[in-house]
Amino acid sequence: MYKLVLIRHGESTWNLENRFTGWTDVDLTPTGVSQAMSAGKLLKAEGYEFDLAFTSVLKRAIHTLWYTLDEMDCTWLPVVKDWRLNERHYGALQGLNKADMAKQYGDEQVLVWRRSYDTPPPALEAADPRSERADRRYAGVAAENVPLTECLKDTVARVLPFWNEAMAPAIRSGKRVVVAAHGNSIRALVKYLDNISETDIVGLNIPNGIPLVYELDADLQPIRHYYLGDAEAAARAAAAVASQGKA
Amino acid sequence: MYKLVLIRHGESTWNLENRFTGWTDVDLTPTGVSQAMSAGKLLKAEGYEFDLAFTSVLKRAIHTLWYTLDEMDCTWLPVVKDWRLNERHYGALQGLNKADMAKQYGDEQVLVWRRSYDTPPPALEAADPRSERADRRYAGVAAENVPLTECLKDTVARVLPFWNEAMAPAIRSGKRVVVAAHGNSIRALVKYLDNISETDIVGLNIPNGIPLVYELDADLQPIRHYYLGDAEAAARAAAAVASQGKA
Repeated sequence: MYKLVLIRHGESTWNLENRFTGWTDVDLTPTGVSQAMSAGKLLKAEGYEFDLAFTSVLKRAIHTLWYTLDEMDCTWLPVVKDWRLNERHYGALQGLNKADMAKQYGDEQVLVWRRSYDTPPPALEAADPRSERADRRYAGVAAENVPLTECLKDTVARVLPFWNEAMAPAIRSGKRVVVAAHGNSIRALVKYLDNISETDIVGLNIPNGIPLVYELDADLQPIRHYYLGDAEAAARAAAAVASQGKA
Repeated sequence: MYKLVLIRHGESTWNLENRFTGWTDVDLTPTGVSQAMSAGKLLKAEGYEFDLAFTSVLKRAIHTLWYTLDEMDCTWLPVVKDWRLNERHYGALQGLNKADMAKQYGDEQVLVWRRSYDTPPPALEAADPRSERADRRYAGVAAENVPLTECLKDTVARVLPFWNEAMAPAIRSGKRVVVAAHGNSIRALVKYLDNISETDIVGLNIPNGIPLVYELDADLQPIRHYYLGDAEAAARAAAAVASQGKA
């Protein structure tokens, strides 16, 4: 049996400001730092050890991983950073306030943008200063693969190849893996692992900074999953995520 | 022409306590954190950009790299951590005070232990709780390659293969490389690059947290090298390193 630990980054400055973030590279808030440290303390207290870490190329996830590993005294672990674990790209909504958008377009429209499986938000123009196409961290990625918007289906379409190419082989080889990533890149993984329908995934929310443990069998099929620590706190945190897009 | 940037970690708790550190995994002091941040600010102000970072598996170097990259806003860079960039192993001296040892054994003996090219300090017993042979971070290293003591010659003998296998090919491929490492793993590299004699290397000291830039030609032969920032401050800091082992 394998164990895979998924951690959504701690609270970011734009989580706090209730703004659509996507690929915008905002940092953790002091609360986010505390959440990341708590995740590390919890993993350490529960006796977890890792051999390999994966994260995105966005600092809120990278810093979350750093604080987590620091608390576990294993910053020496190899870390693979890959853009395919980035948050879902939020298109032209990046930087805008979720509640403002709900007032302007209605809760229903914002829920569609936030949670529809296959309807992406309006796309960024490639020339928009908010576009990441000129960002040198994506220089090694074919331009057409650097999104201008994404629905969750698009995120799944880039997360799964990374799972198949890098993560699943590492787990199968016996490496104990921890992943620090984002609400939607984790939802993409969870949808795949638990075979959640396109309808049901809409209602699934991942709280910030709480380790989510998947126990997997030899074929990497999930046996069960659970949040570490206080289950009710995790449920409350997930509910708070769900309510962010309301006016 | 290539540029390679070498940074010795910021002040560590055992630098401050004037203790032989070697492979003991001590952290940065607040001064060390400031030095690492200053290194990043300096590199950013001078317009440096990197594509790849190398560091050891010891947290004082890893954290130095983190703070440096954070100041340059490029924590997304790939980082290769390798034990062959670790500090020279200080054998049975690890944990002991440099000035106390100088009082007990004389300045001359301590200088031999600190700077002799081919005389290692007394070895740790493999069963000594200070030995790293049971540390899981070295589980992938053949036991006989996990040292119980090292002279600089031994450090050169493990740093150079890593240079040849990983660092030199990366530089030749056009990647702009930054290295956060240790006094003696950097001295090993500098000795090789500048073809310094076994006699002359004894007098060469690397200050903490000041970026050391090597300009290399197409064959990776050094054209020139210099410390970034205040050259006199770098010289004073190097002189302070030299005086640490005196009673």
